[in-house]
Amino acid sequence: MKIYHAPNTRSVRIVWLCEELGLDYELEMFKLGDACMRDPEYLKIHPMARVPALADGDVRIFESGAIVEYILAKHGNGRMRPGEDSPEFPTYLQWLHYAEGMLMPHVNILVVETILLPEDRRNPVNIDRSKKQLTRMLGAVDQALEGREFLAGEFSGADIMSGHAATVSARLGGDISDKPNVAAYIKRLNERPGLIKAFAT
Amino acid sequence: MKIYHAPNTRSVRIVWLCEELGLDYELEMFKLGDACMRDPEYLKIHPMARVPALADGDVRIFESGAIVEYILAKHGNGRMRPGEDSPEFPTYLQWLHYAEGMLMPHVNILVVETILLPEDRRNPVNIDRSKKQLTRMLGAVDQALEGREFLAGEFSGADIMSGHAATVSARLGGDISDKPNVAAYIKRLNERPGLIKAFAT
Repeated sequence: MKIYHAPNTRSVRIVWLCEELGLDYELEMFKLGDACMRDPEYLKIHPMARVPALADGDVRIFESGAIVEYILAKHGNGRMRPGEDSPEFPTYLQWLHYAEGMLMPHVNILVVETILLPEDRRNPVNIDRSKKQLTRMLGAVDQALEGREFLAGEFSGADIMSGHAATVSARLGGDISDKPNVAAYIKRLNERPGLIKAFAT
Repeated sequence: MKIYHAPNTRSVRIVWLCEELGLDYELEMFKLGDACMRDPEYLKIHPMARVPALADGDVRIFESGAIVEYILAKHGNGRMRPGEDSPEFPTYLQWLHYAEGMLMPHVNILVVETILLPEDRRNPVNIDRSKKQLTRMLGAVDQALEGREFLAGEFSGADIMSGHAATVSARLGGDISDKPNVAAYIKRLNERPGLIKAFAT
């Protein structure tokens, strides 16, 4: 498998997942905003010039949530996802999708408004609104983690998605000072060798 | 099953899916922005006071993508999703996730900036940026539909997610005038009785 990866992007999730599963992978490295992501060759892999994308034999696939589901189905041997008959199955799906459905739209806005745009074009109204939303959305994660170590029973693909999203949400200004469960969860995930390696890749 | 639904929201997807599958469902109706979505009773169902959510026996689940996957796994009898061994399986996952990963963050911004905010607080920079992004993102859908009727072989959950997202993206200002495949696709989906019924519910 080849992972199209750039540091500090959603592709960290795919490197992390492969590390947790002990799968072999190659990397094709980009930098966030790299002009060569818009090369015609890469646009055949990802038409929006983003990462992650994955090549696995003849398969080409993008969208991190899709890649997580694909890798777990094809190469997971039942690990890191509850079976469809498990009581954790709906919870797993819910938190697998929460990352992009809830948290990441505001992470996107904060990346644009605090990193990518030149200072004179940044908008404090947008920044303030997204930090407040992330704070509320991390509240729902905090509540879900009451008495639990992970979002859906055992460590799973849901933690890859929403655990990564919670980590970057807190970094970008989502307030977790009154959310002990989510603070401990982020710490716990960020001590896993797979995530340490993925963030360093 | 009970669908927590509000017209003109992502919960249209769940009504549409149940109509396509011929599944019985009850509705609990809200209006977008309804104060009673923040009642403690509903916050137990959805901690962010959003729709859709689904109750199915003892199961409670939110996030439209998760609900689509859940319903197809539990009540689909193999319909509307390719099996894990199908060559369409990665494509299915990709477009299932593209809706929230790519299109909907900009749909959210346009709903806030053109509908929810009072006129004096709307920001034309945000509006313009999101319309341009949606136009590009619909371009990728157009490309994927070249020579195809649906995103992943037969009509599937990927069309429920990204077909709905493409429809609302075009309504809110994503430009499809030079995208014949996506224009025909939106028309084709919006002629299906299930989607007509869901939009009218």
